[in-house]
Amino acid sequence: MPNLTLNRHRERGSTERLILDDLLDDILAGTLSTVVDGEPWVVPMLFARQGDRILLHGSTGAGALRHVAAGAPAALAVIAVDALIVGHTTFDSSANYRSAVVHGKLTPLPDDERPAALDALSERILPGRAREVRPMTRQEMAKTMVVSLPITEGAFLVKTRTGTASAPDEETTAWHGHVELRTVALEPVTAPTSTTSEVPQSVRDFAGARVLV
Amino acid sequence: MPNLTLNRHRERGSTERLILDDLLDDILAGTLSTVVDGEPWVVPMLFARQGDRILLHGSTGAGALRHVAAGAPAALAVIAVDALIVGHTTFDSSANYRSAVVHGKLTPLPDDERPAALDALSERILPGRAREVRPMTRQEMAKTMVVSLPITEGAFLVKTRTGTASAPDEETTAWHGHVELRTVALEPVTAPTSTTSEVPQSVRDFAGARVLV
Repeated sequence: MPNLTLNRHRERGSTERLILDDLLDDILAGTLSTVVDGEPWVVPMLFARQGDRILLHGSTGAGALRHVAAGAPAALAVIAVDALIVGHTTFDSSANYRSAVVHGKLTPLPDDERPAALDALSERILPGRAREVRPMTRQEMAKTMVVSLPITEGAFLVKTRTGTASAPDEETTAWHGHVELRTVALEPVTAPTSTTSEVPQSVRDFAGARVLV
Repeated sequence: MPNLTLNRHRERGSTERLILDDLLDDILAGTLSTVVDGEPWVVPMLFARQGDRILLHGSTGAGALRHVAAGAPAALAVIAVDALIVGHTTFDSSANYRSAVVHGKLTPLPDDERPAALDALSERILPGRAREVRPMTRQEMAKTMVVSLPITEGAFLVKTRTGTASAPDEETTAWHGHVELRTVALEPVTAPTSTTSEVPQSVRDFAGARVLV
């Protein structure tokens, strides 16, 4: 049974695990890979970490996840590019990034575990939104497949580059340094079919947390 | 022999191909997948499109690409999340995204093709920079591996979601709409070892093209 607590203050966490959790909680999309008939089978998708597992969801009908067999060896890969590194040469130029690959076996969640998992997915992507709208119906639940990938110590790989451009190992007058990249949110836009233009708290909080400082 | 022109005005281009090129030219990192011993082998990495092929580069020594066999069936997956879609329910919430998976066989470039390919990679990531610094040395070339993945009609899959939240199929007073996400650049930062603080034109252009409007 996976540990479903958020584990913000876990005691046995490795540094790599902390970096992994931050990265998984920071970005919304990654690439799920498995093997079908000896060929790589990959699909970019939204995901959410919930404690010691990663949740992926899709339509039960035509969705990409229908190809994924229970127990299939899989990997989720994620990368965030945090800065462009401009070296004194093109050879010394690079990027600051945080990347991770999480290996494990996929498990479709049984019916009785799906409601809580879908709440967790919603809460991860837009905190507070679930409390502002009606609950999912039984029909909506039936249309949604949720697959879990465990996060296991030793089964994930984290790589990062941080800092600015490296010190040149030669005489040079060439400028070197870095340019940080950041994802920001623009002003919320009300859909034409919305009967109210009052932006709810969850959306104001989401956009407000992603402004340039 | 791949077509190395930028093909901005190609005649035989499909709509999907135009979306693919825009996406590949818009983001810097994706996930390369292949199969090693029946297990998915995946590595997030920087890439650059050059005409009808995708270039990946890494160190010849300890780099991830050393695992990649010539002719191995591979796939590059990329995804950009452009907006959060806030539906009138959590079931109707989603994201605007552009994703692509490009399938093909990997080809390490021979020595005589590497210089031009590395110039193209540099030009893609930071246009104009190569002309501001000394050329790569023979030793630097020898340390750098470049692998090419062809873009072939019929061997790539593009998926997108655009627009705002869907019109509700029920009576509701719940707000719905969307929040656009955008990647912006902060002010360039000069490294402490740089003898000049005058930011070069290539870096000014890069940062200037990624400000909030």
